[in-house]
Amino acid sequence: HVDAARTNATLQAACVWGSTPDGGMNRLTCNDDDKSVRDWFISETKKYGCHHKVDEMGNIFAIRPGQNNSLPPIGLGSHLDTQPTGGKYDGILGVVCGIEVLQVLHANNVTTFAPVAVVNWTNEEGARFPPAMLCSGVWGGEFTVAYAQGRQDLEGNTLGEELKRIGYMGTTPASYDANPLLAHFEVHIEQGPILDVARKPVGIVRGVQSIRWYNVEIQGREAHTGTTPMDRRSDALLGAAKMILETNRIVTETEVAPRGGRATIAVINSSPQSINTIAGKVSLGLDIRAPADSDVELIEQQCREAFEIISYKHGLTMTFDNFWNSPALAFDPTMVSCVRQAAAEVGCSIEITSGAGHDSVYTSRKVPTAMVFVRCRDGVSHHPAEFSREEDCAAGAEALLGAYLRYDDY
Amino acid sequence: HVDAARTNATLQAACVWGSTPDGGMNRLTCNDDDKSVRDWFISETKKYGCHHKVDEMGNIFAIRPGQNNSLPPIGLGSHLDTQPTGGKYDGILGVVCGIEVLQVLHANNVTTFAPVAVVNWTNEEGARFPPAMLCSGVWGGEFTVAYAQGRQDLEGNTLGEELKRIGYMGTTPASYDANPLLAHFEVHIEQGPILDVARKPVGIVRGVQSIRWYNVEIQGREAHTGTTPMDRRSDALLGAAKMILETNRIVTETEVAPRGGRATIAVINSSPQSINTIAGKVSLGLDIRAPADSDVELIEQQCREAFEIISYKHGLTMTFDNFWNSPALAFDPTMVSCVRQAAAEVGCSIEITSGAGHDSVYTSRKVPTAMVFVRCRDGVSHHPAEFSREEDCAAGAEALLGAYLRYDDY
Ligand SMILES: NC(=O)NCCC(=O)O
Ligand SMILES: NC(=O)NCCC(=O)O
Repeated sequence: HVDAARTNATLQAACVWGSTPDGGMNRLTCNDDDKSVRDWFISETKKYGCHHKVDEMGNIFAIRPGQNNSLPPIGLGSHLDTQPTGGKYDGILGVVCGIEVLQVLHANNVTTFAPVAVVNWTNEEGARFPPAMLCSGVWGGEFTVAYAQGRQDLEGNTLGEELKRIGYMGTTPASYDANPLLAHFEVHIEQGPILDVARKPVGIVRGVQSIRWYNVEIQGREAHTGTTPMDRRSDALLGAAKMILETNRIVTETEVAPRGGRATIAVINSSPQSINTIAGKVSLGLDIRAPADSDVELIEQQCREAFEIISYKHGLTMTFDNFWNSPALAFDPTMVSCVRQAAAEVGCSIEITSGAGHDSVYTSRKVPTAMVFVRCRDGVSHHPAEFSREEDCAAGAEALLGAYLRYDDY
Repeated sequence: HVDAARTNATLQAACVWGSTPDGGMNRLTCNDDDKSVRDWFISETKKYGCHHKVDEMGNIFAIRPGQNNSLPPIGLGSHLDTQPTGGKYDGILGVVCGIEVLQVLHANNVTTFAPVAVVNWTNEEGARFPPAMLCSGVWGGEFTVAYAQGRQDLEGNTLGEELKRIGYMGTTPASYDANPLLAHFEVHIEQGPILDVARKPVGIVRGVQSIRWYNVEIQGREAHTGTTPMDRRSDALLGAAKMILETNRIVTETEVAPRGGRATIAVINSSPQSINTIAGKVSLGLDIRAPADSDVELIEQQCREAFEIISYKHGLTMTFDNFWNSPALAFDPTMVSCVRQAAAEVGCSIEITSGAGHDSVYTSRKVPTAMVFVRCRDGVSHHPAEFSREEDCAAGAEALLGAYLRYDDY
């Protein structure tokens, strides 16, 4: 069995770097705090008999040998990067539960059938280098190394440069073919309210909903705010504001609303940032989701049409670039059944489709994959108030241990 | 008489630093280009017999002695800073016309009754350090030196630090009392369409409309875009978008519209700038104008109420800070009459109320002030396409010369 206090102590240790005064975390991919927690991850997992591989995308595989070391390891992975206004659980808990499994094996002198690898996937959040799940995506064949290393933050730094800067651009090729796993389990906080409402510590993840991300660039015409008549303007920010409202209207007032469609514009940048010059350029980041791919498609179409009409009316030009697609998916039935049996042992049977993307989305392209969800307070995530109780975190680790050992036996 | 080609050559020289490939200018207050053009301004005006005073706000007074040097000089002022997407005429033309007057006096060996000072006022645009007309405002008693030196750009640099950095924090006190002028004339491009429509090169400025600037800070709650139901959000950016639309509606669809009310939100900043975290904080810059103070007041009230309702509906908190007020004003009748007579000599009689603020707004608090407007193509300003013909610029300089000599006689 896992040890709740020990799991919590490991979690606190993993949150030393990048913690914020409000109790949250701000550990963007490849910043100095991310380097520090990676160093910690390697030295911590070494204690439980692991050797390490770091691939070209900075994904770290902490491998504990088994009886059959010609087999690829079974992966227990998640991520140590966070949102700029993140909490201590999103991603971090998954890596910590993997470390707890290592500690249980180590303390009990267990040599498993296959090797096991606790994996820290790089840039899962996509907050600094969009899109999300970028480096598990390279491993799973969705993105090329060149594409992923070239992704830029808002200041124009590339992920490749930043990986080199912190010393985590490894030499292992970032791919399933060159560096395979046998399977992938992931513990993650639910980030939604279902378990909290049902008063259950743990849930079984059936699959993940459909997600698409877009960059929208709007070009108007700069002009003097004091001398330019209201009817002679091409105001890019007024156009952008209408697009934000239309996006919200489409997912709250049309047929997709009861089917769980969601769309959000959370990133906006305008230029020239002068209070007396009408905005000439605005860029928006758009996030569309729904359980069904067809609904994401429908929301996209409706947004695109609405944005085109707004642009036309205001004399704006617009580009609408869908730079990331993550279709809906169902996890591997054998793996889900291992999770189901392990969850039953801690008294849980609720099955959930994830609203958030996870590294498991991309591992599932190559290997049998499943996930365990842990209850989090009020379903709050991507906020410093994100919180899961010590006993719930331990229940997640216990379910992971049970599911993993079942698969190792299998 | 002024020399059109010479005036144009001076204008081109004044646009060497900070010119952009699209034919415009980007010379924000106290950047390195602003330092270079200040150095040029001093060496250029030295050629025509000027000595110089630089005050604590970096305002530069290039003084050519007259017959009665115990009198304060008559000021011919404007500004050499520009918008980030500015043109070659806004402000620059006014300083250049002042230099042209110096050249005419110099070439003709004229010793005027009073001394004359060509003035470069610091940070007229307010683009980098809001509000606008900041340093003529200090001279005119509207702002304290401490307030103005402490104004910050978006990166948090203060104007005081930046003045020191470029070597233009002078020792002359920045005030009318310590460093008076006798009167102030200013040439400026109209930045509106009236002269262009009337096909007249020059106009007489009666006064300036009412202007107020605001910072609006909106606080919502960060949350996951993928897992947070649409009806459980406090989305600061959705609220901000509604405020932008309401602002536009108020000045286009209510009683203030036919009375020339204008309101614009051109600056927006949101955080945490992550595509999958709902914006928790948004700040807006709001600019309200109208010919009548009472209409600016009315627009302000309507915006404030609308913003409060939006905030309430979305669970947001908001602060609405009016940090700058520039009431409507009429220029000095004697000075305007000097401009009227000089304009008549170049065949012009159109009288205009300025939609933009100018340094003359603040000099008029202390000394008789008037302005000459120069036609600009399509009324376009704060855009690289801003353009005034060489002969129109010369007509502006000629009207300045005529008006100034009349006042010197008077
Ligand atoms: N788990 C999580 O928040 N991942 C980020 C990817 C997403 O936006 O769903
Ligand atoms: N002339 C000019 O554009 N000045 C800036 C002040 C304003 O916003 O009106």
